[in-house]
Amino acid sequence: MLKFSRPVVKNCKQLLLFKRCITNSPIIKTTSYRLLSNYKSSDTPLFNGIGAIRSYANTVKFTSEVYPDIHRNDIYKKLNSDDLEYFKSILSKQEIMYVAIENDLQELDLFNEDWMKKYKGQSRLVLKPKSVEKISLILNYCNEEKLAIVPQGGNTDLVGASVPVFDEIILSLNNLNQIRQFDPVSGILKCDAGVILENADNYLREHDHIFPLDLGAKGSCHVGGVCATNAGGLRLLRYGSLHGSVLGLEVVMPNGDIVSSMHSLRKDNTGYDLKQLFIGAEGTLGIITGVSILTQPKPQAINVSFLAVKNYEAVQKVFVKAKKELAEILSAFEFMDQRSIQLTKKHIEKDTSFPLEDEYPFYILIETSGSNKAHDDSKLETFLESAMESEIVIDGTIAQDETELQNLWKWREMIPESSQCQGGVYKYDVSLPLKDLYSLVEVVNKKLADADLLGEAPKPVIAAVGYGHVGDGNLHLNVATRCYSKEVERALEPFVYEYVSSKHGSISAEHGLGFQKKNYISYTKNEQEIKMMKDLKKHYDPNGIMNPYKFI
Amino acid sequence: MLKFSRPVVKNCKQLLLFKRCITNSPIIKTTSYRLLSNYKSSDTPLFNGIGAIRSYANTVKFTSEVYPDIHRNDIYKKLNSDDLEYFKSILSKQEIMYVAIENDLQELDLFNEDWMKKYKGQSRLVLKPKSVEKISLILNYCNEEKLAIVPQGGNTDLVGASVPVFDEIILSLNNLNQIRQFDPVSGILKCDAGVILENADNYLREHDHIFPLDLGAKGSCHVGGVCATNAGGLRLLRYGSLHGSVLGLEVVMPNGDIVSSMHSLRKDNTGYDLKQLFIGAEGTLGIITGVSILTQPKPQAINVSFLAVKNYEAVQKVFVKAKKELAEILSAFEFMDQRSIQLTKKHIEKDTSFPLEDEYPFYILIETSGSNKAHDDSKLETFLESAMESEIVIDGTIAQDETELQNLWKWREMIPESSQCQGGVYKYDVSLPLKDLYSLVEVVNKKLADADLLGEAPKPVIAAVGYGHVGDGNLHLNVATRCYSKEVERALEPFVYEYVSSKHGSISAEHGLGFQKKNYISYTKNEQEIKMMKDLKKHYDPNGIMNPYKFI
Repeated sequence: MLKFSRPVVKNCKQLLLFKRCITNSPIIKTTSYRLLSNYKSSDTPLFNGIGAIRSYANTVKFTSEVYPDIHRNDIYKKLNSDDLEYFKSILSKQEIMYVAIENDLQELDLFNEDWMKKYKGQSRLVLKPKSVEKISLILNYCNEEKLAIVPQGGNTDLVGASVPVFDEIILSLNNLNQIRQFDPVSGILKCDAGVILENADNYLREHDHIFPLDLGAKGSCHVGGVCATNAGGLRLLRYGSLHGSVLGLEVVMPNGDIVSSMHSLRKDNTGYDLKQLFIGAEGTLGIITGVSILTQPKPQAINVSFLAVKNYEAVQKVFVKAKKELAEILSAFEFMDQRSIQLTKKHIEKDTSFPLEDEYPFYILIETSGSNKAHDDSKLETFLESAMESEIVIDGTIAQDETELQNLWKWREMIPESSQCQGGVYKYDVSLPLKDLYSLVEVVNKKLADADLLGEAPKPVIAAVGYGHVGDGNLHLNVATRCYSKEVERALEPFVYEYVSSKHGSISAEHGLGFQKKNYISYTKNEQEIKMMKDLKKHYDPNGIMNPYKFI
Repeated sequence: MLKFSRPVVKNCKQLLLFKRCITNSPIIKTTSYRLLSNYKSSDTPLFNGIGAIRSYANTVKFTSEVYPDIHRNDIYKKLNSDDLEYFKSILSKQEIMYVAIENDLQELDLFNEDWMKKYKGQSRLVLKPKSVEKISLILNYCNEEKLAIVPQGGNTDLVGASVPVFDEIILSLNNLNQIRQFDPVSGILKCDAGVILENADNYLREHDHIFPLDLGAKGSCHVGGVCATNAGGLRLLRYGSLHGSVLGLEVVMPNGDIVSSMHSLRKDNTGYDLKQLFIGAEGTLGIITGVSILTQPKPQAINVSFLAVKNYEAVQKVFVKAKKELAEILSAFEFMDQRSIQLTKKHIEKDTSFPLEDEYPFYILIETSGSNKAHDDSKLETFLESAMESEIVIDGTIAQDETELQNLWKWREMIPESSQCQGGVYKYDVSLPLKDLYSLVEVVNKKLADADLLGEAPKPVIAAVGYGHVGDGNLHLNVATRCYSKEVERALEPFVYEYVSSKHGSISAEHGLGFQKKNYISYTKNEQEIKMMKDLKKHYDPNGIMNPYKFI
């Protein structure tokens, strides 16, 4: 790995040496870049296959016990044997999982529990239909019978949106998982909603393309799920939001109607863009069953640099500079605070060496991707040279091969898991004006310290750490705890939301509302917007069967 | 201008010479690039200020005369003196234009007539409120009184969407034209809906940014108007659609409610993305009064190349190659057929020389824009060299300075005006799968010839020409005529729509539906989608006062 550190680069000769090293760096072959796909994420830890790294969490309490003030709504019918008979009549054995009332629910834990092990429902029925038509029949029946439903993709969400609160039927998209069509000329992919994001991305890479979105949960999360939650992730900086790249959706409405706009056109300006309603609606207006999306050509060259700066002001300066000088090749700009890295050092595999010799207050990870390695190297070189010259960057390193590249990403990627692994984590995912982005971490640490909740055991909180997508004005605040505790929750909420609101930010930049933030929406949205949302929900789902107790 | 022609490049020596010429080409200064902004358009001719190039059109007939089957809907009240009194009570003299029943309507022609001089309403009242609050009062009143309204921006639309059909009140956004805020760090611009696109772009260029959308009508069209019509234009290939770049809207609903999501955040995932409903709704659900949008850093280097190929297959091959090799710097990929250029040669200023010596079946205009001129030149050079080597490109030229760059763009830009200037034009703006894109032009020419409508005067049709945004699968078919004629219209419609539908295309890629395509929506949208659209319209505008007789 090529290291450079401002304090030791004292003259032009050394800068020149530094320059030469970059220029002569070997080309990172794109064939092997595919191996790295697992290591690029947003705020979700790395995991492939549900439950892969769930083992460190404690037994999860039922949501209804943790939040006793929330009650099951009696408008929903309780599942009976007739309902079960109906579902059995339209579905095969592989498409139903049912646990009788006299048996232990544990068999369905993977469907009832969320990834953070913070929320747990008590559903006894999981339906995994293999066709859109079957989903239509199910919804039509549930709507008539007023049976509540939770649509579930890869169950990797972080706000309790994809698990039941009480006994809602879980409708899993696991069995609807086929690539439908791909056109390498236009780059348009059509697939079932239940295709795992990584499978879609791997398929596309075989055709010299990539999915326009990437996140840590890619090994489990579904293409339909990322649309339903309007996931952000790393590639947003480069390829924009799903509202721009999704070209069509197939959706089953609460009454069973199938609405499809699954065309293969980049542009269609005939009427209201109805699909937009379902992007980010978290399954509260209907179930996404198919996605048509504009994918991107696979980059030919990737560079990753890991930098150290002395304060948050410098983070902003480097960002403005990168936006201007790296411009069209900038594909990620992530920052991490010292506490994030300290936590990660305790948790990361022993053989993953930290890329810098010293510790610094803030770190930045910059990724470039483009079509010409030499050009990209040259741009990055010029950029870093002047950043060091002007002393905004004080230390740093550039990956020289794919192993190093992977290693650098790991230090960003492992933060969520490192925050979670010692008992639990309170996760806040907020948008703030760039200048205020980091101040939230500071005020939260102060607040927790003042309340005597932060410090060595037995104090519940280990640290409040901050990191995230500077390029999108998106901070992830993770409050790492030794256990989930009402006292900590009360110290954090609504304090965090009030602070974000006072800075005109958003209480959810990319995670959505789900169960966790349902009651805090007014910190971001105004009265008129909330009124319109409630009206829209009532209009499309008058019986309220879709993902109740959440969102709005 | 640097010319290169495959037939004369017979050996490597000449290729090398060609290579050197490109490498040594002078840098196009970005300071002067701003002068070119008028010459970059999509399908709308160049014009600054309403009416600037309208002189060649004949007297426009009232829409109600041309389409006698469409009748004024009696649910709408006719404007009376009480209504006028009310508007006078809330607006200043500068905010009202009224023509009494005994006077000639001509004074309002610029508001009643569309740009193509194809549609003309008979409104006697134009309201030009200076504040959002006044728009709210107007809509509230009109809704109560059942007075129909046409929202109007720069009135540059191409489907008769922005002019009245009968006596609807015209609500012009002309006086709501202030930049509200710009943040150069995030690139987020907030402005009133009535800001002229070019003014917004010029303002941004002073701050090293550009508007993420560009079109020929930029000198007249409004920022709010491009959002209301979901305009596409040239930069879509690079910066994506408005559904991705618009971050927030302020909208006055038909009942006068003001709904605002005008925040300064790149990401906000708290609830339904309501603003999306109004992007492309053509003012049928409410009036956009404010826009918050993510703008882009101003490119530091621009290259333009004008190429000749022998058939449409080669156009596709060059596109696939450009997407791969020019990748992140490709900012426009336009094609034109021989007939487009032949028409343009007759109309264009005499001093604008055609860049190639011979004529060819198809032409391609490629623009690159990036942050490093040397890198961009090198990429373009490698690309062109191999395109010539493999004989996909048979002739071509690269702009060596800004005048040449401007000249090359003109040959693409002048096509719409050249199609229009000899009497009239039937414009079709369709999306088709790339392989089928050009076939529409061929079948339409055949159809018109078979019907004996195409040829020298006195036959009505001069030619059906095709050009457009290959990168977006978007063809502009312009049928240049000596006069508007029912016979030609009958030959074209629904034939064009049927053909597009048979290829699973869209009958409107970027122009929208308006009055022209209202009745043809079923060629692109299915029954369920149309049902949902009608339901949405009824839900938000139960009295149907917003832009009636159009859209859905």
